[in-house]
Amino acid sequence: MANKKKFSIIVFSGDYDKAFAAFTLASGAAALNYEVNLFFTFFGLNIIKKQRGHKGLGDGFLSRFFNFLMGGRNNLPLSRLNFGGLSPILLGGLAKKRNVASVDELIDASIKLGVNLYACETAGVILGLNKDDYIPEIKSVIGVASFLELQEGGQTLFI
Amino acid sequence: MANKKKFSIIVFSGDYDKAFAAFTLASGAAALNYEVNLFFTFFGLNIIKKQRGHKGLGDGFLSRFFNFLMGGRNNLPLSRLNFGGLSPILLGGLAKKRNVASVDELIDASIKLGVNLYACETAGVILGLNKDDYIPEIKSVIGVASFLELQEGGQTLFI
Amino acid sequence: MANKKKFSIIVFSGDYDKAFAAFTLASGAAALNYEVNLFFTFFGLNIIKKQRGHKGLGDGFLSRFFNFLMGGRNNLPLSRLNFGGLSPILLGGLAKKRNVASVDELIDASIKLGVNLYACETAGVILGLNKDDYIPEIKSVIGVASFLELQEGGQTLFI
Repeated sequence: MANKKKFSIIVFSGDYDKAFAAFTLASGAAALNYEVNLFFTFFGLNIIKKQRGHKGLGDGFLSRFFNFLMGGRNNLPLSRLNFGGLSPILLGGLAKKRNVASVDELIDASIKLGVNLYACETAGVILGLNKDDYIPEIKSVIGVASFLELQEGGQTLFI
Repeated sequence: MANKKKFSIIVFSGDYDKAFAAFTLASGAAALNYEVNLFFTFFGLNIIKKQRGHKGLGDGFLSRFFNFLMGGRNNLPLSRLNFGGLSPILLGGLAKKRNVASVDELIDASIKLGVNLYACETAGVILGLNKDDYIPEIKSVIGVASFLELQEGGQTLFI
Repeated sequence: MANKKKFSIIVFSGDYDKAFAAFTLASGAAALNYEVNLFFTFFGLNIIKKQRGHKGLGDGFLSRFFNFLMGGRNNLPLSRLNFGGLSPILLGGLAKKRNVASVDELIDASIKLGVNLYACETAGVILGLNKDDYIPEIKSVIGVASFLELQEGGQTLFI
């Protein structure tokens, strides 16, 4: 295992289209037998929140308010041409019509293929989120130093 | 050739300024004798569409509508301070005035320097675009797995 | 020193949250004894401008106007949910309340830890900015070719 090729992604963005790209790459790399590490931070935490829609999480008013605004996996906006959330639905529809996997399906596939999911400790502290607020598939909440060690010697992207 | 250093970019963004950055890096790396692979996906496909302005491509209403909205190489927006398309024109003017290459010139230079251009299969399927819709310099339409193999052992960026 | 692990970041974005991520990674990597190189370009130049607020720099009307619009380190917007600059202030407040370092503190820490800061020559030419317009900690203004050589053999991100 020590010599397995590594592919890591810092998932900073919480955009629907970028989550789509991140999980397409992650599941693709896992299928090619890479060790894949996803490190969710800032807006990317929306993708792995248990609350999948607009509902405040966090342990203080500002945190709750920010988390409410950021939404969850069911409210990921498009990075461009979002039109108040209409476009992700249309794009999701197009993907379905063409038999392309949806973001949800890509996340499930990634998990089944053994992709490691980590949540960023610092961003969690700022937003008042902890491990219980994330989907159970999150392996652990780690700091930047631990992530830097994990990705060492492989290919790493910032999305 | 097998030992040539590799530099690959996943061009996800269709922003004018990010296209500028991607092709500056690509042509620079090619001039330094790197093997350079650009993989265009989602909004990045706008940069390599044959239709360079707002004109619908694709094989269904939603696809055509989305492609129309996304525009083409002549309508790339700025990632910030776009002002309805005015800023890319101003920035292009500034670049010209200072004798800095424009995006079009950087694309031409990259092609002449042997940069490999690939279009993402999955994004093409979602948007109803195929090889004929892209500029002829596109080497091929490939999936994520093929791209992951291409970039193996080099430096890869996500823009 | 030649065998030191390298970690480089092309800081293209001038968003508050992305600057936060870039300097968290940079200071973290420097603390882990990586050689860290930050290459600021386009909007990222706002982070290292001497003028930390909205005040025009540059050597021509368009440049000055653009630089004015882009602002400086004290006006970095959030990549999402900016609300006219209110959110960066709120997020900064949250970070402070939870004893997380601010962007300013992360920049100072990065400099103290020996992170190398470079400004992009081409973007400087377009925007009419030169070395005197940047904070004195900028090691030098370099072109893409020089940066590509600097990052060779390490991990590089585009933020």
